[in-house]
Amino acid sequence: MAHPIVKHLEEFRAQKSDLLHKDFLITWEHPRTQIEAILALAEVLKQLHAAQVPYRAFDSGLAISIFRDNSTRTRFSFASAADALGLGLSELDEEKSQIAHGETVRETANMISFLAEVIGIRDDIFLGEGNRYMREVGVALTEGAREGVLHRRPSIVNLQCDVDHPTQSLADLVWLKEHFGGLDQLRGKRLAMSWAYSPSYGKPLSVPQGVIGLMTRFGMEVTLAHPEGYGLIPEVLEVAKKNAAENGGRFRVVGSMEEAFRGADVVYPKSWAPYAVMQRRTELLKKADKPGLAALEKECLANNARFIDWQCDRAKMDLTQGGKGLYMHCLPADITDVSCKRGEVSAEVFEQYRIATYHQASYKPFVISAIMYLARVKDAAARVAALVDRVR
Amino acid sequence: MAHPIVKHLEEFRAQKSDLLHKDFLITWEHPRTQIEAILALAEVLKQLHAAQVPYRAFDSGLAISIFRDNSTRTRFSFASAADALGLGLSELDEEKSQIAHGETVRETANMISFLAEVIGIRDDIFLGEGNRYMREVGVALTEGAREGVLHRRPSIVNLQCDVDHPTQSLADLVWLKEHFGGLDQLRGKRLAMSWAYSPSYGKPLSVPQGVIGLMTRFGMEVTLAHPEGYGLIPEVLEVAKKNAAENGGRFRVVGSMEEAFRGADVVYPKSWAPYAVMQRRTELLKKADKPGLAALEKECLANNARFIDWQCDRAKMDLTQGGKGLYMHCLPADITDVSCKRGEVSAEVFEQYRIATYHQASYKPFVISAIMYLARVKDAAARVAALVDRVR
Amino acid sequence: MAHPIVKHLEEFRAQKSDLLHKDFLITWEHPRTQIEAILALAEVLKQLHAAQVPYRAFDSGLAISIFRDNSTRTRFSFASAADALGLGLSELDEEKSQIAHGETVRETANMISFLAEVIGIRDDIFLGEGNRYMREVGVALTEGAREGVLHRRPSIVNLQCDVDHPTQSLADLVWLKEHFGGLDQLRGKRLAMSWAYSPSYGKPLSVPQGVIGLMTRFGMEVTLAHPEGYGLIPEVLEVAKKNAAENGGRFRVVGSMEEAFRGADVVYPKSWAPYAVMQRRTELLKKADKPGLAALEKECLANNARFIDWQCDRAKMDLTQGGKGLYMHCLPADITDVSCKRGEVSAEVFEQYRIATYHQASYKPFVISAIMYLARVKDAAARVAALVDRVR
Repeated sequence: MAHPIVKHLEEFRAQKSDLLHKDFLITWEHPRTQIEAILALAEVLKQLHAAQVPYRAFDSGLAISIFRDNSTRTRFSFASAADALGLGLSELDEEKSQIAHGETVRETANMISFLAEVIGIRDDIFLGEGNRYMREVGVALTEGAREGVLHRRPSIVNLQCDVDHPTQSLADLVWLKEHFGGLDQLRGKRLAMSWAYSPSYGKPLSVPQGVIGLMTRFGMEVTLAHPEGYGLIPEVLEVAKKNAAENGGRFRVVGSMEEAFRGADVVYPKSWAPYAVMQRRTELLKKADKPGLAALEKECLANNARFIDWQCDRAKMDLTQGGKGLYMHCLPADITDVSCKRGEVSAEVFEQYRIATYHQASYKPFVISAIMYLARVKDAAARVAALVDRVR
Repeated sequence: MAHPIVKHLEEFRAQKSDLLHKDFLITWEHPRTQIEAILALAEVLKQLHAAQVPYRAFDSGLAISIFRDNSTRTRFSFASAADALGLGLSELDEEKSQIAHGETVRETANMISFLAEVIGIRDDIFLGEGNRYMREVGVALTEGAREGVLHRRPSIVNLQCDVDHPTQSLADLVWLKEHFGGLDQLRGKRLAMSWAYSPSYGKPLSVPQGVIGLMTRFGMEVTLAHPEGYGLIPEVLEVAKKNAAENGGRFRVVGSMEEAFRGADVVYPKSWAPYAVMQRRTELLKKADKPGLAALEKECLANNARFIDWQCDRAKMDLTQGGKGLYMHCLPADITDVSCKRGEVSAEVFEQYRIATYHQASYKPFVISAIMYLARVKDAAARVAALVDRVR
Repeated sequence: MAHPIVKHLEEFRAQKSDLLHKDFLITWEHPRTQIEAILALAEVLKQLHAAQVPYRAFDSGLAISIFRDNSTRTRFSFASAADALGLGLSELDEEKSQIAHGETVRETANMISFLAEVIGIRDDIFLGEGNRYMREVGVALTEGAREGVLHRRPSIVNLQCDVDHPTQSLADLVWLKEHFGGLDQLRGKRLAMSWAYSPSYGKPLSVPQGVIGLMTRFGMEVTLAHPEGYGLIPEVLEVAKKNAAENGGRFRVVGSMEEAFRGADVVYPKSWAPYAVMQRRTELLKKADKPGLAALEKECLANNARFIDWQCDRAKMDLTQGGKGLYMHCLPADITDVSCKRGEVSAEVFEQYRIATYHQASYKPFVISAIMYLARVKDAAARVAALVDRVR
């Protein structure tokens, strides 16, 4: 029997990729064939790694990361992806750098990019800011390249913004593809993206938004569930609706975790802050209004506490398809009696799916590598095919 | 005359290494042939570097370091060792990462390891915790590999814990081997591992423990000296006794630096905190009891001050074998009138042996490279032999 | 027509470089042929990068950076330069390391250097200290190599000290060479290095000092302008005078920006703290005299405010040669109404020359690469020629 990498290579070569020298910011701005090319290439690269066939593509060049929020797994995924391609990692630490002294985005974007191939950015704290910041950087890089300041315009990879978290949702999708045996198997599958209780506040909206914006493109029946007042950015809801309509899927919003879980093949219970709260918080953060922020946090935690029963536990899992729905989480989860007194998921349910969530996470470095590869390497298809030949 | 690298290569090939895909946490958990293989390979790699023959072994892959305590020389040794083998360095900074938010060790261990070859850990502050933490990480990695989450289980290298500091004691041993002209020359040599006065408190026990646990395996006559109440972990004393009994050496504990130095071929005077104090300190740290910690520090410094004459000076060096014993230190030393008013060693003695201590330190990056090489490279012996051919 | 890289290669090969295994600390300590070799090689490397011909020269080895002051562009330039040559980057973070515990410079210099090729240092805060520190490190490295502690003595590259900022001034000079069409075209050209108003204080003197110390060697007519009391280090003024006398240029000091700008081909308006203030500040910093520092800052800002009309604006630019003088800045500039209420340059003038300043900055990574290459690679000329063959 052929090695499974052969099938993934064929899937990859069947798709058209148009990412060369471009950015990857939002999944729904890229055609489906582009998404499928990334998914398949991520699987190929993962299997090359398993087979100990290096897929280094550069002799030198930098992959720069800008983290404006904490990160462990995305930070390491980006570092791993860059290293695998032969790129040196350089982090822009804004506290250390002169950015803190008022330097403009435009200037910094060029100053760090003379030998850069890729810039990965996480900027998810301020609503309406993170994605805009990435586009500002992009405009500056385009100008720099046009003016000959930069020999090559580096590609920006969104490592989480206020709107989307594409490397997360793509890793989630490769995992679903793998778990169910192919993208075509996702058609008609029911996915519940549900708010869950957490004793913290201010978690970004980009994970649920990324999931509903992506999975609706593959014929899944996606249900978004949250308590009243915990809505996402309205524009993203429109994207999800449109995707579902165009791709033969379904998208609906309900007000109970139980309702969403009923008959679900996949559940993704995760906390987030309400859209309206994020807007208020962004304004307070901009004004550095500490008493205002403290008051908002208190108000929100009190509000969260009204929905303490939005916990993914055995009873709710029993509502899923045959009681055997797949539990997903982007990690780290707030686990009741493990990482907190009461959280998003019961210890028992988490433990049952713990290894599954690790598998889910394991696709992220390869998704990032795939995006970098397609954005920076000419003749990607031919080069990857030559690597695959070394596996068989 | 043949290049000295040839002899070291032969020494290396004469030993059996069984480290492939394993961890290196405690020297006395590995058989003597394993230790000798590491020593000889470290010397081979050092001479390859001197001869400008690169010994890069990887196209890509990460070496991850986790420093839960300050470090300059071990940090740079690890970085140098990783770079020399072709691995990219990635530091897990726990303040930056989500670990600070209660993420479990198990999960993080897997999340950072998808493309990792080696994880180096320094965790020496809490008695009973550092080594345990490394083993917890190891169990998580083993599970990750077994469940297919990780394609390959990375190897853990102990960069100093509460029990042992193996890369230090192995570097010390290569230095002694080199200084005296071979491992067999160490038999019967007298080594004084002595407590010394320092105006600080809370220094880890792992250096003296590592030294008495390792040097007793090579027939050395090891004397541990410390004031009453400054004992080491009892289990490690038992290891030293047993090692000495089994290897034709000697191990004894005395209560005076002079007594230990008398007739010594090698002296290693270094401050540490008493075992019992470290236990109390660990409890206070866990409770974050700041007044308690301040009181303990005051008490300990006052107690240290009773032993201010435990300083390695000319008079004490005159007691050593022919007045010419070799002074060793893991650096940085507390040097009287240089780095402090009164310290572990007089300025004159330190200056006499300063370059010797630099040589001692110079073996550490190569010891770490050797461990990484044996833990990660198949057919290490054949590959190294091919490199040595390029020297002659 | 031949590719421009051919001309730069010929320029490079026409010069003698004597930098192998040496440091680069101050431009005026190196003969002019050395400077010209660096300039030409920087241009060759920049064009190799543009042509996607990698110029990696190492399989492994570390480039260590020590930043004792903030930096974005020099930090990334150094990282880019190191990566392009195949060196791994390792930063000595003095807060993380044991240096903070009183470890001597001498010892640390050796401890970090066992596998290092290059050490880049920025130390520009304390007058009389930064350059001295680099030389202390150098002495320690020389001793380490002589004593066999280090197999090879790494080369130190000055990334800005209290006296000079050579990678900046050399990048500036390559830019001028490129802009005017050759080094010989600089003869007789007028450059105004002028103090400019800024709402901050304590900016280093090394940029203006570096510029007047370097450009006077190439026959330029350099005018230094500053308000009374804003002088530079007297010894550097002597260097500039001597350079001008020996190289058929001119050097004069005037007391008005207008006078300096009149007829200038190039203007470089930039704020700095007066020499005498830097001396007082250094003493206060050493004593950690916070009230004294606050009082000094207040006094200086008040004094600066007397010279608020030292702003580079349209009216002053109109005084330059044909109103078309080239504006230069090391970035980031204090731009009126952009980065501050009132600064070194008007928004309109800065915007006109913004892309030009980006070009100016773009040479820095290649200047650093060129210095590293000449300091570390034997047969540099032959190796570079072979690379250039791949372009045509």
